[in-house]
Amino acid sequence: MAPVSGRGTKKGILERLDGGQVVVGDGSFLITLEKRGYVKAGLWTPEAVVEHPNAVRQLHMEFLRAGSDVMQTFTFSASEENMESKWEDVNTAACELAREVAGKGDALVAGGICQTSIYKRHKDEARVKKLFRLQLEVFTRKNVDFLIAEYFEHAEEAVWAVEVLKESGKPVAATMCIGPEGDKHDVTPGACAVKLVKAGASIIGVNCRFGPATSLKTIKLMMEGLQAAGLKAHLMVQALGFHTPDCGKGGFVDLPEYPFGLEPRVATRWDIQKYAREAYNLGVRYIGGCCGFEPYHIRAIAEELAPERGFLPPASDKHGSWGSGLNMHTKPWIRARARREYWENLLPASGRPFCPSLSKPDI
Amino acid sequence: MAPVSGRGTKKGILERLDGGQVVVGDGSFLITLEKRGYVKAGLWTPEAVVEHPNAVRQLHMEFLRAGSDVMQTFTFSASEENMESKWEDVNTAACELAREVAGKGDALVAGGICQTSIYKRHKDEARVKKLFRLQLEVFTRKNVDFLIAEYFEHAEEAVWAVEVLKESGKPVAATMCIGPEGDKHDVTPGACAVKLVKAGASIIGVNCRFGPATSLKTIKLMMEGLQAAGLKAHLMVQALGFHTPDCGKGGFVDLPEYPFGLEPRVATRWDIQKYAREAYNLGVRYIGGCCGFEPYHIRAIAEELAPERGFLPPASDKHGSWGSGLNMHTKPWIRARARREYWENLLPASGRPFCPSLSKPDI
Amino acid sequence: MAPVSGRGTKKGILERLDGGQVVVGDGSFLITLEKRGYVKAGLWTPEAVVEHPNAVRQLHMEFLRAGSDVMQTFTFSASEENMESKWEDVNTAACELAREVAGKGDALVAGGICQTSIYKRHKDEARVKKLFRLQLEVFTRKNVDFLIAEYFEHAEEAVWAVEVLKESGKPVAATMCIGPEGDKHDVTPGACAVKLVKAGASIIGVNCRFGPATSLKTIKLMMEGLQAAGLKAHLMVQALGFHTPDCGKGGFVDLPEYPFGLEPRVATRWDIQKYAREAYNLGVRYIGGCCGFEPYHIRAIAEELAPERGFLPPASDKHGSWGSGLNMHTKPWIRARARREYWENLLPASGRPFCPSLSKPDI
Amino acid sequence: MAPVSGRGTKKGILERLDGGQVVVGDGSFLITLEKRGYVKAGLWTPEAVVEHPNAVRQLHMEFLRAGSDVMQTFTFSASEENMESKWEDVNTAACELAREVAGKGDALVAGGICQTSIYKRHKDEARVKKLFRLQLEVFTRKNVDFLIAEYFEHAEEAVWAVEVLKESGKPVAATMCIGPEGDKHDVTPGACAVKLVKAGASIIGVNCRFGPATSLKTIKLMMEGLQAAGLKAHLMVQALGFHTPDCGKGGFVDLPEYPFGLEPRVATRWDIQKYAREAYNLGVRYIGGCCGFEPYHIRAIAEELAPERGFLPPASDKHGSWGSGLNMHTKPWIRARARREYWENLLPASGRPFCPSLSKPDI
Repeated sequence: MAPVSGRGTKKGILERLDGGQVVVGDGSFLITLEKRGYVKAGLWTPEAVVEHPNAVRQLHMEFLRAGSDVMQTFTFSASEENMESKWEDVNTAACELAREVAGKGDALVAGGICQTSIYKRHKDEARVKKLFRLQLEVFTRKNVDFLIAEYFEHAEEAVWAVEVLKESGKPVAATMCIGPEGDKHDVTPGACAVKLVKAGASIIGVNCRFGPATSLKTIKLMMEGLQAAGLKAHLMVQALGFHTPDCGKGGFVDLPEYPFGLEPRVATRWDIQKYAREAYNLGVRYIGGCCGFEPYHIRAIAEELAPERGFLPPASDKHGSWGSGLNMHTKPWIRARARREYWENLLPASGRPFCPSLSKPDI
Repeated sequence: MAPVSGRGTKKGILERLDGGQVVVGDGSFLITLEKRGYVKAGLWTPEAVVEHPNAVRQLHMEFLRAGSDVMQTFTFSASEENMESKWEDVNTAACELAREVAGKGDALVAGGICQTSIYKRHKDEARVKKLFRLQLEVFTRKNVDFLIAEYFEHAEEAVWAVEVLKESGKPVAATMCIGPEGDKHDVTPGACAVKLVKAGASIIGVNCRFGPATSLKTIKLMMEGLQAAGLKAHLMVQALGFHTPDCGKGGFVDLPEYPFGLEPRVATRWDIQKYAREAYNLGVRYIGGCCGFEPYHIRAIAEELAPERGFLPPASDKHGSWGSGLNMHTKPWIRARARREYWENLLPASGRPFCPSLSKPDI
Repeated sequence: MAPVSGRGTKKGILERLDGGQVVVGDGSFLITLEKRGYVKAGLWTPEAVVEHPNAVRQLHMEFLRAGSDVMQTFTFSASEENMESKWEDVNTAACELAREVAGKGDALVAGGICQTSIYKRHKDEARVKKLFRLQLEVFTRKNVDFLIAEYFEHAEEAVWAVEVLKESGKPVAATMCIGPEGDKHDVTPGACAVKLVKAGASIIGVNCRFGPATSLKTIKLMMEGLQAAGLKAHLMVQALGFHTPDCGKGGFVDLPEYPFGLEPRVATRWDIQKYAREAYNLGVRYIGGCCGFEPYHIRAIAEELAPERGFLPPASDKHGSWGSGLNMHTKPWIRARARREYWENLLPASGRPFCPSLSKPDI
Repeated sequence: MAPVSGRGTKKGILERLDGGQVVVGDGSFLITLEKRGYVKAGLWTPEAVVEHPNAVRQLHMEFLRAGSDVMQTFTFSASEENMESKWEDVNTAACELAREVAGKGDALVAGGICQTSIYKRHKDEARVKKLFRLQLEVFTRKNVDFLIAEYFEHAEEAVWAVEVLKESGKPVAATMCIGPEGDKHDVTPGACAVKLVKAGASIIGVNCRFGPATSLKTIKLMMEGLQAAGLKAHLMVQALGFHTPDCGKGGFVDLPEYPFGLEPRVATRWDIQKYAREAYNLGVRYIGGCCGFEPYHIRAIAEELAPERGFLPPASDKHGSWGSGLNMHTKPWIRARARREYWENLLPASGRPFCPSLSKPDI
């Protein structure tokens, strides 16, 4: 396990970003653990942290090995609204698991909250903020390193989340699950960015719902919005691990393949290296993934940006750069694939000649 | 965790198959653990059993939860030829991990060996058999429940493997990594099947190299060969979790996407339910997977054949049959996907309009 | 041959459009005659009118039979600039051929001019207008019914063309070969439309370079531009007969398949019926085609809009509506295709599994 | 117009083939004239020869210009069975049109007959042969140069046709519309070939129903059949101009796109050059096309085999070899396409991302 240091000495998230460091986020928990057998699609709640802690710990470990600098608590949808009486145990256990694994490396722990159903149904600021505050109390008690408000479709609710999280005094990141068309109330990405920064978020960006290429388009619009408003913030992107050039405003959930037929859309490691490079070139310094992002995708970010970071992640001991591990293959035509140009230019076939290449979203 | 019983009372592999039971195999170790960061592509050896036992244990657990009746020792390529002095520790640890997890359910432990490089280079029967015997000694010492000779391109070497494994007195399964065109010496699938049965294998079939549909074609040819020869054996299929309609005699390793661009070819759970049903209808009773087969693919076999087996696997507590978990989704057009016809008829898009649907193999 | 009337009694183009009639344009000459062996790709000049008048006459006849209300003179690129001393004979012969065939039905003759190379190289208004005037003199002498300025990439040059053509006193239509991104000087479609109308065009729209769906998007933007400016004009669309969702600002000439690999993109008759209906619903009343538009595509327009026009074209005596001619097939599964829903919902396969579905334009 | 000679001096079909000459066939009449508005799909009869002789003459002219050495009479399905009292006029006019155009070059006239419905319904040899004899009487009276029995699904009926045509004393060619799986009674291509030669055909092969690549596979099997039987014959292939890798035994009529959605499958000129070369290399010397083969496809055969034939066809005065006509284009990226490697390696996109690349035949 690579650059470890005593916990007391770890640099905080803002210290890292302010210093120009790349921060590698983590990847997919819900979709990945659904495939491993521990999360129920449709429900999408993280009771696995108490039911099957080994499975969750193992996934954290894989992301750490892959190069993640942040262990997000597996608390997505873990509000009282969705988990009833279990919510507190789940949030507590999730913090402990994240901290345990973070301690094995140089990673930070980030407590995460996301959008509520109450907002959509009632737009009741007091009730929504109360839900956020309950989770925040656990995060504060377990002393997470910083906070992430993620997966917000509405800028208004995201602002409320930031306002609550700011009460803790800890750094706050805020990412919305929007695409270039903006939020569900037609607030543009640029305007969303401005609102989040004004609410107090130090790091802003997008997560989920859209693939790597689309998410970077949204980030670009957010940057332009901040520039126009004379504001500054650190940028963060945690895209899907799926290609979604055909999705509309609602993102991948509206694609007919969601959630049980997305396989042909999974990004290769080379797609993700391209994404990491483009994000970096855009000025984004917090780069991770969301649904569909497996540990090897995170490793791809860490490998692509190894020159900038100065080191490879632990899991690179099991990965030759640009396929170089194939050098030892017995078949010469497979050895011939052990080079960057090969994989950069590969146009991978679907193996499905009876299927189309794009779908029409359901809405 | 479902139907557990004291170890002494577990029925053996032949007892199960002779009694008409469906035996669900396990899935992908090398490719899956490569993506999780514990196996090096190109090398493809299982040193993870000693280096990262938690990661291997966790994967065994996931397959057990998904419904696997067999824990194969993670000993692929773990011969002295490939692993030098480490080989014995690796085989020993692999047996212990498989036994530990098998003990948490009704699963059996199968010791596995595969083809050698020495065969291709020297065709030296004595040396090849000596390599097999070394691994067999560990399997015997650790008292595995039965033995599997798998991933053989040449019927001749597979026969040697069966001959060695038979020395143990334990039941022997033998699967070749061939397609409908037969082995690398142009021995047809039917002739291969006959040789394996005559050598003493009780269970024969194919594993790896070809996708679900192609593997079942090969199995059919094997069955016809046995029938023509008046022979009988239990049938076993452990296909790739990738669609490979375009592969030639050499299978998926010759596709330009192997091994780092296969993502668009990954089977959906629905593809695997179809595969399980078709395998069952053909008369195959040992049904599992090989490279690319994730835990949820194994669950798909167990769910498809739940009526025949009489029970669902543990991981089905996190899976609604045919997408029924989507019933609770807030968006009506997503709820509309909670039905069998929807997923059975879906033609999933690749999201890659600049890529083809088939590739030409490199050879 | 259907609704014929003595020439003197034919209604003029504006009379027809002002009266709310649908005017069906004609289709592809250059690309179609290239495939028939009479036009040279790259050169794209219409010397066939003098070299092989039968071939040109026959194509005019096919469009007339298919329902075209307009015979455009085959004078594309037939300026002195491109054809040197031959230009006058070619323009004269083209007028005579068009008139001859128009006389066999109720069709009008339109004299057509297009953009020049001089404009791009020198932006010399006098020289450009002089070229236009030369062709106009022939058209006036041969007394064509109206004039079309088509295939302009720059609004400025199109305006010059309209200004020249207006000198004749005949009605002038003007179409640009632009897409939704506007002209090569970044003049938006709306602004282009305004300029053309202000210059005196009675009919404006787009032709060539973009497929049916894209061309209608551009038309919509043109309409919005006119509305915003408080202007009115008749609308005209003559799209490619090729699908080009992937083309950029330059249109289909920048696609790697141009001009010798466009086959897989050719529209079906059903695609064109959809295009005709959508154009009509948008308010477009002059609906025809450009490159790739074969006679049966024109028939598809005439059949789709037969309810509005009140009659079917002559060539419909050889075409059952919505495939109804298949009713008499001996194979029941082919008879089952003799219905509208079948063809409307068909997703036609390319038969090319090694090819992508989209291309990246060369620029 | 190129190598013309007085009619009396033309070499006969066997003289040409025996002398090792390449004979270029003609292309599609029914499908091409359907698109031009003169043939009704479903009916597929050639009444156009009397109704619209100019249209038929023009198509003959285009094939002659493209390099065809044979003008087939447009008498497909023109038996008494299908055309009732019109049959005789149609056959007579078809012979006259073919002869008229053939006289403008060095082409021969071939009288053509095809399979009957009576065969399928009644297998009545006398009635079937009587139908053939009626057409043959016209061909004899009009003194065609040789005879073609084409589009037979059953070897038995094809043999009857050859037997009747042989009565004339003229050379007989016979082509079946079968693929590699053989005829509808499971007679293999090799066995079909043997039967046809034994019945007296001097030239045998396949036409229609299958694309270029598939048709050449069938031809290869026919050749092997003849070799095994110690027989010899000239070989002839007239494939579809459509790619049909997905068709089954019945060929393209069973594809869901038949006949009104085949556009994306149309071969490029480069596909046809490849087909011509491969046919030539196989030893086929009579190379033409069937449904979907447009004049430029025939020109592609003539251009590919120009080195062997010693001359280019007349229509090559309007075609630069391998796209060389693009050399004069104003845009440099289009000029860059003026070379053989470009077009040989192009993978043309369908422009249809919502469509699959292959279809499942209806039966």
